[in-house]
Amino acid sequence: MHPLEKMFRPASVAVIGASNDPDKLGGRTLLHLRELGYRGRIYPINVTSKQVQGLPAWPSVRDLPEVPDSALMLLPAPLVEPALEDCAAKGILHVQVLSSGFAEEGAEGAAMQDRVAALARRHGMRITGPNALGSISPPDGFFGTFSSLLATAQPGPGVIGVATQSGAYGSHIYAAAHLRGIGISRAIATGNEADIDVAAAIDYLAEDAGTRVICASLEGCKDGAALRRALLKAAAARKPVIVMKVGTTEVGAAAAATHTGSLAGEDRIFSAVFRECGAYRTQSIEEMIDIAYLCAIAPLPPNDAVGVLTVSGGIGVLMADACIEAGLAVPPMPDATMARIREIQPVAGGRNPIDTTAQINGRMHVFEAISQEMLRGAELGSFLFYLAHLGRNVPRFPPLEQTLTRLRQAAPDRLVVAVMTSVEEIRARLEALGVPVFEDPTRAVKAVTGAARLQALQQAAAAAPEKTMTMAPRRIIAGNEAAAKALLAGIGVPVLPEHACGYADQAVRAAEAVGFPVVMKILSDDIAHKTEIGGVLLDVADATAVQQGFGTLMDRARLACPEAKLDGVLVAPMVRGGVETIIGVQRDPIFGPMVMFGLGGVSVELFRDVAFASAPLSAARAAALVQSVQGSRLLDGWRGAPALDKAELIAALCTVSALAAAQTDIDSIEINPFLVRAQGSVALDALVQLRAPQVQPSTPATIF
Amino acid sequence: MHPLEKMFRPASVAVIGASNDPDKLGGRTLLHLRELGYRGRIYPINVTSKQVQGLPAWPSVRDLPEVPDSALMLLPAPLVEPALEDCAAKGILHVQVLSSGFAEEGAEGAAMQDRVAALARRHGMRITGPNALGSISPPDGFFGTFSSLLATAQPGPGVIGVATQSGAYGSHIYAAAHLRGIGISRAIATGNEADIDVAAAIDYLAEDAGTRVICASLEGCKDGAALRRALLKAAAARKPVIVMKVGTTEVGAAAAATHTGSLAGEDRIFSAVFRECGAYRTQSIEEMIDIAYLCAIAPLPPNDAVGVLTVSGGIGVLMADACIEAGLAVPPMPDATMARIREIQPVAGGRNPIDTTAQINGRMHVFEAISQEMLRGAELGSFLFYLAHLGRNVPRFPPLEQTLTRLRQAAPDRLVVAVMTSVEEIRARLEALGVPVFEDPTRAVKAVTGAARLQALQQAAAAAPEKTMTMAPRRIIAGNEAAAKALLAGIGVPVLPEHACGYADQAVRAAEAVGFPVVMKILSDDIAHKTEIGGVLLDVADATAVQQGFGTLMDRARLACPEAKLDGVLVAPMVRGGVETIIGVQRDPIFGPMVMFGLGGVSVELFRDVAFASAPLSAARAAALVQSVQGSRLLDGWRGAPALDKAELIAALCTVSALAAAQTDIDSIEINPFLVRAQGSVALDALVQLRAPQVQPSTPATIF
Repeated sequence: MHPLEKMFRPASVAVIGASNDPDKLGGRTLLHLRELGYRGRIYPINVTSKQVQGLPAWPSVRDLPEVPDSALMLLPAPLVEPALEDCAAKGILHVQVLSSGFAEEGAEGAAMQDRVAALARRHGMRITGPNALGSISPPDGFFGTFSSLLATAQPGPGVIGVATQSGAYGSHIYAAAHLRGIGISRAIATGNEADIDVAAAIDYLAEDAGTRVICASLEGCKDGAALRRALLKAAAARKPVIVMKVGTTEVGAAAAATHTGSLAGEDRIFSAVFRECGAYRTQSIEEMIDIAYLCAIAPLPPNDAVGVLTVSGGIGVLMADACIEAGLAVPPMPDATMARIREIQPVAGGRNPIDTTAQINGRMHVFEAISQEMLRGAELGSFLFYLAHLGRNVPRFPPLEQTLTRLRQAAPDRLVVAVMTSVEEIRARLEALGVPVFEDPTRAVKAVTGAARLQALQQAAAAAPEKTMTMAPRRIIAGNEAAAKALLAGIGVPVLPEHACGYADQAVRAAEAVGFPVVMKILSDDIAHKTEIGGVLLDVADATAVQQGFGTLMDRARLACPEAKLDGVLVAPMVRGGVETIIGVQRDPIFGPMVMFGLGGVSVELFRDVAFASAPLSAARAAALVQSVQGSRLLDGWRGAPALDKAELIAALCTVSALAAAQTDIDSIEINPFLVRAQGSVALDALVQLRAPQVQPSTPATIF
Repeated sequence: MHPLEKMFRPASVAVIGASNDPDKLGGRTLLHLRELGYRGRIYPINVTSKQVQGLPAWPSVRDLPEVPDSALMLLPAPLVEPALEDCAAKGILHVQVLSSGFAEEGAEGAAMQDRVAALARRHGMRITGPNALGSISPPDGFFGTFSSLLATAQPGPGVIGVATQSGAYGSHIYAAAHLRGIGISRAIATGNEADIDVAAAIDYLAEDAGTRVICASLEGCKDGAALRRALLKAAAARKPVIVMKVGTTEVGAAAAATHTGSLAGEDRIFSAVFRECGAYRTQSIEEMIDIAYLCAIAPLPPNDAVGVLTVSGGIGVLMADACIEAGLAVPPMPDATMARIREIQPVAGGRNPIDTTAQINGRMHVFEAISQEMLRGAELGSFLFYLAHLGRNVPRFPPLEQTLTRLRQAAPDRLVVAVMTSVEEIRARLEALGVPVFEDPTRAVKAVTGAARLQALQQAAAAAPEKTMTMAPRRIIAGNEAAAKALLAGIGVPVLPEHACGYADQAVRAAEAVGFPVVMKILSDDIAHKTEIGGVLLDVADATAVQQGFGTLMDRARLACPEAKLDGVLVAPMVRGGVETIIGVQRDPIFGPMVMFGLGGVSVELFRDVAFASAPLSAARAAALVQSVQGSRLLDGWRGAPALDKAELIAALCTVSALAAAQTDIDSIEINPFLVRAQGSVALDALVQLRAPQVQPSTPATIF
């Protein structure tokens, strides 16, 4: 049994701070337990009354005739600690502290919360909250919460589990699900998370037999490793996890920090971790519920290819556009298939989307025949059927129902979605067939996209871990570019031979050693922007030019920066062509060392074209990281140029990520640029920074 | 009176092809006129029956006792032409041809459609369709359509006008609006558009007193000028236009071409034209209806700044993130405002979003006081109030109603949006106050974004036209880079002095003339990629280096391209620094000459960071075009670099666009790169292409 089972589904529960007044939180919570179908034993705790809401009451949990599975605590904050001591003394293992007035109200409350957490740890007691909304299990009729939502929109039983940090966020999800007619298995809002957090709740839901789909919402994270484990567990159990995290923008992140007092972390790193652990992140509650609804009813599609069959050409195009923009494929049907389809319906338009035209009305056998041809014609993972208003026409529904029944039988692993306006009866009958129904075409495509992504992400996350490089720790000395390059060269990252030269003849000898043509750069700690002062000479062809170039560089530097201390000139081989990339690693305070990859130039900052992944990287993950950057198309043979050698780039990513994973003293590595070429890719500049010892980062580090 | 008034709102209507059988289109259309509240005179036309559906019927419109305002035609396609002749003979000015079997079914149907169009033109008769769904005017009870939707979801009367090309698309919009409780003023689906198109319908709706908001959907466009005029007319009338156009992706565009047989055009050019004419483009029907709903009820916000007041911190952050991502501002409240807010509610969190926490329940005066402080604290165009489930609690509603009434009175020009779950009664009461209600926070933000954009777009479109340059036509000779540069130099676009040199001494003299350092480029029509063979020398410093460089370039060219005919070396002044941009003009088959602007390098192709605008450009529009490109931040002083001189770039855009507008023989101009510098911006390369005479483009040109 999962350690949280009795908290989510107690056979007996104490309500500490129970009241007769349903306008008080302790009164409303008790009312919910009494009236919404809970079949377990309820113990009101009230210091003064012998009876509360008609039930026998006890002055303290210490007096109860049994040890309840769980307690719900609704006392004012200052009374929480002694009451928790009572619970511990009685041996209660789960307490949901719904009282507010803790860390969310300042330093004093935070100190009290720390004491509550310590108390729980000391007694081996698990607690939710404080400042939590509580938990519900609609299939058990258990509503352990004071949420006023239940008065007007009580969530029905279902297979979707919900774990949120914020109570209001959670209850918005419950309400939106209820209004869509979608049921819930278990739900919890964890509040201040002194002990149980969203990750712990996901861990439970991943095991819970009554839950098939998990919706989660975070505002931050204290234990990155626990979150990763919980998400991977859900992926292994093939339960789709749809997750939201607020604070995607700077304004939002600042607001989230005020709101929760917790470390929000670099938002894009959360996205990377979610993806790696098989979870799909959405940006709106509506999209989350749409995808959860779809996953609760239908199979995840085996691939990204979508077949669109429509009674309206325009809506078909709308859906095809939306599919392509979401990264799905809409493959054209082959000629042979089209020939058979045109036999069935001569006016059918397009190859996918296929427009049957509205003439299909009352001729559902034609629609069925075309859909079966499409099924045979290409490996389609999903079908989107646009059927206008057929879902509002109950007498005309049976032929559609039979068509979809046969299609589901013929291809039980494919996702079939009906897009139409509809009445509840027809929706329910289609859902029973495993066919989700959407009114808005674009929302349907977004939900299909989520399902297709979840399939791919879960498969990747649930696969056996790929091999990553291991590296023995070594002693690293902080230093400049030269030190960093030496370190990188030592672990096998290619770097260029470079020579610092104090006078012109030395530069000529260096150039002869590395081979012409060469690059010459002014060498001075005081000149940050060499190019701007003409301090870099490219493509220097021979000894005479080197001789002359040395003087030119020194003259230019003296002229532009009369104060600068000049250390001479750096001579390196001229490397032509290639694409500049950036390889970085940064130790994230929540998730540990994270690799960053992007292109050189302005694409990282200007277009945010940058991707993150956890270190260490396997070769496959490194390749996927590179591919996920828009600009990596430049490496694949841009505008007819030959493809570049990504193998060396991928090797460098693996090596550097393994180094960062092995060396906890490294704070960041940046190779900028790492030049990718047709052959002989090379790190042109590098910097390694070590962690300041014993200093904990107090604010989220901005990564690059 | 608008020429289409009697078509949308006829006082009398003939139904040609009327039938007793409601399963037939002619039967159903008549039924809709008889039973859905139409108060005009109905004339069924039927060759065999004296009575149809209990009404007296006539064999031909020629026999009618009056000239009806409009006729609805539901005959089989081959009977349409003679029946239209009858209409013309009778003097009927508007006929809606709802019959299908025309251009959408191939060449024969297309020929018939052309004859129908010619017939109508000949008689001065306006026609809708063929293959149209017809028009409706719910406030008049007029439903001139066979749409089966009306049986289950009859659109109610309202102030939103709808013009779509596709009937199914239109009826989806009607249904979605109906299900949201949103009423319609007039709607039309124009079908094959032999005469009346979506632009003509927008033109009507822009004048129609019963219409306050216009929703339009196009699949293509035949008359770009008419579309522009209609949209500008709506903008001048301050009626928000929300528009969709399918075919945004290549797959979608191909499908749209199959579906409508019409020229889809370059999708991004449609976006530019919509924007310039004050219309807001959406990507989903749901978003279109959300925005139309908002605009029908509430004022457009005077600016982009949003105040977020929330009972849930998490949802507040979600909305703030969504605002920022949509380009809206969420300005923090000033210290003085925050001090007063904290006096009112000590636990209030954040500076905007402001989180009142759920403690606000039952204390609406606190919520009101904070909102009034926010109103005084910053110039907010919109307020987003997240109120959880208060909209489901009718007894607790009056204090909220009073709060919002007072806020609307205090700031009648601001947009106030309530985000909450709600029941219909509460929604209706808030809507009567001018407060739209949304359940999903993200959808609310998207609707606010649309309203804010519409305000800005309409203001710009309705403003007096800005001054553009006029240019007398000149004789242009097609030619190479040199000819293009000469043309551009002649109209004042800055170009570099360049010298083609046949031998080394000539190169030295040229270098001395333009001034050191210089750039030397190999000159050969046979060498396309000079850089790749080392055929460009940058920063050549003095006469010796030029002398030597001449030989180096010729040697390299001979080695790399032994077959190439070498014309010598081009010598030009070395231009350092600056940002490469691309200025282009392309004559669009629908919308005429369109200017394109983007950055050099890979940002146009890789990141699609490119913007379009109609030629000729005023200086203000040229500046806005530049600013709308993400990469133009590089011009504004990137990473502490000095800001570059955009004035010369803007002047060049205006000049080039004026040239293209004046010269109908120019097909395209491309200046790539136009180097923008701190001073002395310059066109480094250019190409001008003329139109092939008397050849009409048969497929949409792909722009760059």
